[in-house]
Amino acid sequence: MPSNDADDEYTESATEPPVTDPDVLVLRKGTHGTPVEQYVDAIRDRLPEHTVELARTPAAEREAIQSASFVTGMTFGEELLESADKLETFACAYAGTGHLPLDELDERGVTVTNASGVHGPNIGEHVLGAILRFTRRFHVGNRRQRRREWRHYRAYELQGSTVTVVGLGAIGQAVCERLEPFGVETIGVRYSPEKGGPTDEVIGFEGEAFQDALARTDYLVLACPLTETTRGLIDREALTTLGPEAVLVNIARGPVVDTDALVSALRSGRIRGASLDVTDPEPLPEDHPLWTFDNVQITPHNAGHTPQYYDRLADIVAENVERLENSEDELVNQVRP
Amino acid sequence: MPSNDADDEYTESATEPPVTDPDVLVLRKGTHGTPVEQYVDAIRDRLPEHTVELARTPAAEREAIQSASFVTGMTFGEELLESADKLETFACAYAGTGHLPLDELDERGVTVTNASGVHGPNIGEHVLGAILRFTRRFHVGNRRQRRREWRHYRAYELQGSTVTVVGLGAIGQAVCERLEPFGVETIGVRYSPEKGGPTDEVIGFEGEAFQDALARTDYLVLACPLTETTRGLIDREALTTLGPEAVLVNIARGPVVDTDALVSALRSGRIRGASLDVTDPEPLPEDHPLWTFDNVQITPHNAGHTPQYYDRLADIVAENVERLENSEDELVNQVRP
Repeated sequence: MPSNDADDEYTESATEPPVTDPDVLVLRKGTHGTPVEQYVDAIRDRLPEHTVELARTPAAEREAIQSASFVTGMTFGEELLESADKLETFACAYAGTGHLPLDELDERGVTVTNASGVHGPNIGEHVLGAILRFTRRFHVGNRRQRRREWRHYRAYELQGSTVTVVGLGAIGQAVCERLEPFGVETIGVRYSPEKGGPTDEVIGFEGEAFQDALARTDYLVLACPLTETTRGLIDREALTTLGPEAVLVNIARGPVVDTDALVSALRSGRIRGASLDVTDPEPLPEDHPLWTFDNVQITPHNAGHTPQYYDRLADIVAENVERLENSEDELVNQVRP
Repeated sequence: MPSNDADDEYTESATEPPVTDPDVLVLRKGTHGTPVEQYVDAIRDRLPEHTVELARTPAAEREAIQSASFVTGMTFGEELLESADKLETFACAYAGTGHLPLDELDERGVTVTNASGVHGPNIGEHVLGAILRFTRRFHVGNRRQRRREWRHYRAYELQGSTVTVVGLGAIGQAVCERLEPFGVETIGVRYSPEKGGPTDEVIGFEGEAFQDALARTDYLVLACPLTETTRGLIDREALTTLGPEAVLVNIARGPVVDTDALVSALRSGRIRGASLDVTDPEPLPEDHPLWTFDNVQITPHNAGHTPQYYDRLADIVAENVERLENSEDELVNQVRP
């Protein structure tokens, strides 16, 4: 195996002396597997006239936060927020902001932006890869390859299948765009079906229409936020409606699927397989039955994480730093207030 | 593992008494993993007013061939051809006809059609699946999954990559169509680049342009026939030009790649990986070094074989049976005379 395809290990790059009062403060917690230094570099590339500083230690973070007005990071602990007296803008590096202390941020009048849109290409590619893995039954091929066995097996064909995409945000749209040339029927599921969407049909979560769609579905892609409506959406009933040829692809959040019902559906062959980038519980414990299925693909919540992820995130930050300097009213990806 | 995703085993369906002098005679050798009975059924569905007969044994084949005028099958042995005194049309079930006794067929004035075009959707899906498998580094995920290890790793991003497609026939075109929404640069390689094509650039096999293209290539897809020009096309020099981030996808024929040079490039990490549906030698012997690489995907020459393959093949046969009845001059997919 060549070294460039080995498991990645990263080392921190050499540090520079910290800048006090930077224009942009980057908190130290990076995202999965990709060092936050790359994010800092990407912002610096876009804002060469500005100071961009990374808080490398908890102490540096507590120190720097006191004077920072523009902060970006994955999360923002309440404890840290207590000392953030000058904070005006927090650029959250996730699309979802449910993990942030939003009440506190609102109380302090902090503008919050999210990372919506940065995941389109990478998660779109992940989802198409997962669908085609099951279409082409690559897991059967892998098994034979490990046995050095040259023996034919049949694949499915994606063309003519029905793909249902739950959630038509930036990710759902990216999936639909990439499905376009494959000649599939698409059904979109969203809160406001009257808005339409990029799919052949658009339906809501309520009533018969959703179950009817599941019954026709060959590939079910979950790309919705976790809400009261979507929590446990794919339960025993939904999995039974799906039918034995259906494949579930979850890149949303683990609890959108009832894990026990999924394990039971897999055990009895009621669905064809599942590709899970998110699980409930997450991380998946070593003794969890989901690890045991040959027709389950598990990836460690990394569908959204490619080197380009930080580039797109830095685009948002750089654009907003400039908008603030020009005293513009609205920021890109602004979610609060 | 559910039974519907288990390794396939097929049993022959119940036989009916043979029809003498059928309108269409189907030879008994089926294609990889899919019983030829499905092909017979697909032709019967399309020609309900005609007799379609399968020769199930060598003896039945030798018997039936003497009076058959329209025959279809994977191959046509010279010995069998000697008794085919009434043969007018042979519908070859492969896109390539180089394995047929073409001189003999010409001498007997037999019209030959091929299966060009039937592989577009299935091989297109296979190629995109193979590309995305390497983009998303699913093999790293598989390895961690087998160890029940929830640990992040970085994927690549297909968007912004350069994909070179060698051969712009039906399969190459199907690949290019499916790449369209992924935001990649595409380079097509064909004999007559002046004809243009569905790629951003089109070049020939000769001169500097081909090596220049390889140097810019992230994914190299081989979808060309095996000819004097393409035999050994991907040799040591080509593999060195490709560079360490490049992935080779071969769904053409094994000898388009110099296997020894490929093994050596993989050993020294000079390319990122390879997805091989065809190999040289083929089938790949159990002790062949190509089985040993974690960054090589091997599928047993089944990229083109899905249940729908026979449907599209039967479309060609049914259309041509009708054209012959209407005394039309030209058949669909006619390659000889």
